[in-house]
Amino acid sequence: MSTGYALAIHGGAGTLPHARMTDAAAAEYHAALAAVLAAGEAVLQEGGSALDAVTAAVCALEDAPLFNSGRGAVFTADGAQEMDAAVMEGTSRRAGAVAGVFGPRNPVRLARAVMERTDHVMLIGQGALALGRSAGLPFEEPEYFFTQPRWDALQETLELRARGGEDDDPARRHGTVGAVARDRDGRLAAATSTGGMTAKAPGRVGDTPVIGAGTFADDGSCAVSATGYGEVFLRWSAAHEISARMRLAGASLEEAARHVVEVDLGAYPDSGGVIAVDAAGNIAMPFNCEGMYRGHVRTGAAAQTAIYR
Amino acid sequence: MSTGYALAIHGGAGTLPHARMTDAAAAEYHAALAAVLAAGEAVLQEGGSALDAVTAAVCALEDAPLFNSGRGAVFTADGAQEMDAAVMEGTSRRAGAVAGVFGPRNPVRLARAVMERTDHVMLIGQGALALGRSAGLPFEEPEYFFTQPRWDALQETLELRARGGEDDDPARRHGTVGAVARDRDGRLAAATSTGGMTAKAPGRVGDTPVIGAGTFADDGSCAVSATGYGEVFLRWSAAHEISARMRLAGASLEEAARHVVEVDLGAYPDSGGVIAVDAAGNIAMPFNCEGMYRGHVRTGAAAQTAIYR
Repeated sequence: MSTGYALAIHGGAGTLPHARMTDAAAAEYHAALAAVLAAGEAVLQEGGSALDAVTAAVCALEDAPLFNSGRGAVFTADGAQEMDAAVMEGTSRRAGAVAGVFGPRNPVRLARAVMERTDHVMLIGQGALALGRSAGLPFEEPEYFFTQPRWDALQETLELRARGGEDDDPARRHGTVGAVARDRDGRLAAATSTGGMTAKAPGRVGDTPVIGAGTFADDGSCAVSATGYGEVFLRWSAAHEISARMRLAGASLEEAARHVVEVDLGAYPDSGGVIAVDAAGNIAMPFNCEGMYRGHVRTGAAAQTAIYR
Repeated sequence: MSTGYALAIHGGAGTLPHARMTDAAAAEYHAALAAVLAAGEAVLQEGGSALDAVTAAVCALEDAPLFNSGRGAVFTADGAQEMDAAVMEGTSRRAGAVAGVFGPRNPVRLARAVMERTDHVMLIGQGALALGRSAGLPFEEPEYFFTQPRWDALQETLELRARGGEDDDPARRHGTVGAVARDRDGRLAAATSTGGMTAKAPGRVGDTPVIGAGTFADDGSCAVSATGYGEVFLRWSAAHEISARMRLAGASLEEAARHVVEVDLGAYPDSGGVIAVDAAGNIAMPFNCEGMYRGHVRTGAAAQTAIYR
C-alpha cells in the first residue's frame, strides 16, 4: 500500500451562479479553500490520521464565514441557526453526528465528541449541547455566527415566498462543507457540517448528519462527504451507495461516485455533488450542478481549488 | 407479477430472556402480534397500499403497551420519553422521519406527515411537533404513554449504573417496532417506531428514524425494518446494505438479510435483527439474538407469530 496521503474538501454545491460571480469574490473563495487544504494537509504531512485531517479541514471551513456551516451558517424560517455535522472513520466505522445544535464554535468537534465520548452515534438538540459543555468544547455567542449576507438571503427568500414564489437559487438552497482523507497508513475518514437550507423549517435535518447519506467512511471502499439537496441524498443513501457499488459491483471510485451523482441523483437536476477518496488515494468529485466549491491535494502535488466545471 | 400480498411485523429484538418468559406472558405477546397482523392485513386484503398497511400495523404496535414505541415507550436517563419513527415507500422512495418527539399518539403518523406534507425527509423536536399539530394528528398527555414496567426498568437500570454495573438485559437495551409489506400491486413499504433504549442519554437517536439504517424501501429490491442496538445498524447502514446486496451482488432477499445480520452485525453479538420483504413477496426475518417478537402473513396463508428461534 502506498504511503501517500490524499485530501479533498468541498465548500458546498450551493455556488453563486457563474454569471454573478465577480473575479474578486472568486479569488476570495479560492484563497479560503487553499487555506482549508493547508490546514488539513499539515496534519497528514506530519503523519497524522485521516480523522484528524478531516476534522481540522472542516473546523477551518466552519470558521470561514464564506461557507454555510459554523460561522456563516444560514438562517431558518424563524431567523435561528440550526447546525448539523457528522464525522466517520473507516477503520472500525466509528461515527458521530449531531443535529439541531447552536452554540458550539465547531459542530464537527461536537460530532467527534459523540463518537469518542459516548456509546452513541447521533445526538440531537439539548442532549448534544450538554455533551459539548461537559467536553469543554468552545461555545460562541449568536453574534459570532451572524453574517449579514446570510441574513439578507433569508429576508429575500421570505419575501419571495410571501409573493408565492419559489427559491431556486442554489446559493440559498444548498451549502454544506466537508472533507475526506486518506492518510499515510491507508486509513480513510469523512466529515461534513452544515447550517442547512436558507429559510428551512425549524427542526429540518438533511443528509449531512445522517451516516450513509451525507457522510460515510469504510477503509475497504471509500470515504464520502456530500453536498446538495439533502432530502434526495437521504432517500438514495447516497454516500453508502457509492461504497456499496465499489464493494459489491466492482466499480472504481470514479465510476461509483459518478453513477450516484449523475444517474441516481441526476434525476433531480442541480441536486448537488460529492467528494470521495478511496484506499489507493484516488479522488472523485462529481457534481450535477453549475459548480461546487472544492479542492484537493496529494503527497508531492500542488493543491488545486476550483468552483465551476 | 403476482397479485398476492405479504406483511411482516416485529415488536423488537429486545425480548424477555426465554428463561424469564411465562406461558401467560408469551400468550399475551402472541395475541398482540396477531392483532397487529390483522390490522395490517385488513388494509392489504381490501387492495390498500403497502404504505397504508405498514402505517396501520405500526400504529397498532404503538398503541400496544407491551412494545417499546408510542404507549409503553421506555424512559430516558432523565425520566422522559423521546420517540423516533420513520416510514418509506419503495415506488418513488419517498420517506419521512421524526426524532426526539413526545406527544403525538402515533409517531409513525407524524413521520408520514413529514413525507406527505413537507418537502423534507426528517424533522426533529419542536419543529416536528409543530407539524403534527398543524396536521391535526392526535396528541396524548404523559399519563397515556406511562407504563409501570418501563418506569421500573428505568429505576433498575439507574440503580445498576449507580453500582457501576452495566445493563445487558436485551429487554431493556433494545426494543423497536416495525412493519414491511408488499401489496397486490407489487409496491413495497417499511415503517419503524421506537422509544429507544431504557435510560438512554437525552437526545440520543438510534437507527430507527435514519433512512438506510433502520428503515428502507425500494420496489426494485426490498423493504426493511430493523430492531436492535441502533448504533451498530447506523454504522453499517444496515437496511440499505440489504438492498444493495440484492441490487448489486445478485443476492436473494434471504441471503442479503442473513449476510448483514449474521456477518456484518454478527460481529456484535445480540445486536438484533431485521424483517424484510421483496417484490416477489418473499419474507426474511433473521436475528442474531435470543428472540425477536415477530409475525407474518401472506395471501391465502394463516398468520404466524413467533418470539424465539
